[in-house]
Amino acid sequence: MTAGRLTVVGLGPGPACWVTPAATTALAEASHILGYDAYVARLTPAPGQAILASGNRVELDRATEALTRASEGRRVALVSGGDPGVFAMAAAVFEAIESGPPGWRALDVRVEPGVTAMLAAASRVGAPLGHDFCAISLSDVLKPWELIARRLKLAAEADFVIALYNPASKARPDQINRAFAILRAVRDAATPVILARAAGRPDEDITITTLGEAHTHAIDMRTLVIVGSSATRALTRQNGAAPWVYTPRFAK
Amino acid sequence: MTAGRLTVVGLGPGPACWVTPAATTALAEASHILGYDAYVARLTPAPGQAILASGNRVELDRATEALTRASEGRRVALVSGGDPGVFAMAAAVFEAIESGPPGWRALDVRVEPGVTAMLAAASRVGAPLGHDFCAISLSDVLKPWELIARRLKLAAEADFVIALYNPASKARPDQINRAFAILRAVRDAATPVILARAAGRPDEDITITTLGEAHTHAIDMRTLVIVGSSATRALTRQNGAAPWVYTPRFAK
Repeated sequence: MTAGRLTVVGLGPGPACWVTPAATTALAEASHILGYDAYVARLTPAPGQAILASGNRVELDRATEALTRASEGRRVALVSGGDPGVFAMAAAVFEAIESGPPGWRALDVRVEPGVTAMLAAASRVGAPLGHDFCAISLSDVLKPWELIARRLKLAAEADFVIALYNPASKARPDQINRAFAILRAVRDAATPVILARAAGRPDEDITITTLGEAHTHAIDMRTLVIVGSSATRALTRQNGAAPWVYTPRFAK
Repeated sequence: MTAGRLTVVGLGPGPACWVTPAATTALAEASHILGYDAYVARLTPAPGQAILASGNRVELDRATEALTRASEGRRVALVSGGDPGVFAMAAAVFEAIESGPPGWRALDVRVEPGVTAMLAAASRVGAPLGHDFCAISLSDVLKPWELIARRLKLAAEADFVIALYNPASKARPDQINRAFAILRAVRDAATPVILARAAGRPDEDITITTLGEAHTHAIDMRTLVIVGSSATRALTRQNGAAPWVYTPRFAK
């Protein structure tokens, strides 16, 4: 049996120009590429490569399938949007290993980092993550809302810039409203807020607003939300363009 | 006067295989490339490109110089390690714009995102950032220690995974000891800790330890520290290799 390998590959937020050369190499070297349909659809497979696409909600099944193929001696690439280590497939792989056959702990498992959504979103408007920040997933599929609420409150008290992943979905449209309500109780209504939908993709749609005025009806699972700290500011432009938003490196 | 442009370009953590194609294009299109000596040294300039290297401590001067050149109609690339928006040059550029001539607000300023250090460090050991996390710079050059201490305490209470940038330098070797003392008062001594020095570079040196046993004498300004949450775990391997460290996607 040849030595199998599983590489969890970060494809970045969408465009090919944000896929690292290391990720491209890992894909080229794979005999099998697994991933969520929408990510696999971005790829152009090489001759002889097997492509196995699956749904969004079956991360653990997909991780198990990838590990099984690697344990059979295959070169497997498991693709992930953004960075695979941030609210993505890498953690699912290690969950599967922990509860899987002991032999999986001898496998060659690698992670190829990528540009995660909050970095892409931030880059489109300026530098809102220029100072201490946190990243919170609002999905309560995997954790209770009480824990999310507690983290939001403490993050606001710590005056972090806050990046919100998975802010809303059809199954839970109201999470982002509840999150904003918690943040509004601590942070000023004038705090800059960025709603970055599909950053870097053809249907990119970025709104710069404030915590007091942010409308949440347009926020969906493809949106990354950034809520500023007390120091985050919007710089008006001379030419009528959207303002730049940034957080200074210094703080009092 | 031709239309100038300033692009703040993230070079990622070090190796060329982690530089995005978009960053490479932005560099190729520049007539002038500015940056900290250590980052500029990674580049191979094209014929006719002007390279302007400067020291580590002069971010605002460098940003001002870059903006001045862009306002003269040059195509300027200002390079930054990692992602330019995370404890790096992008915020310094917008600080310079805010206090600079009004005309700078009409400039074409862009940010090219990159793989920031915590993503590279995390990828080397597993998926420690697989759940909610925060990023804090321990440098007290730009903010008072009291604010850092308060954020560390609240981050620990929120049970975030914590990434620490700029954990120590020759001028302030004891910051990381003080930070660990704050975290030890809240978080268990068995909490996994990753000390990732120069991740992805030839002299990479990664240590997996615990909050109780972490030695700080080897931590310097090139080290990225990750302190786990209460859910972060080390998975022992079958083959005597270093354990994998990951944080599950779910939480109670």
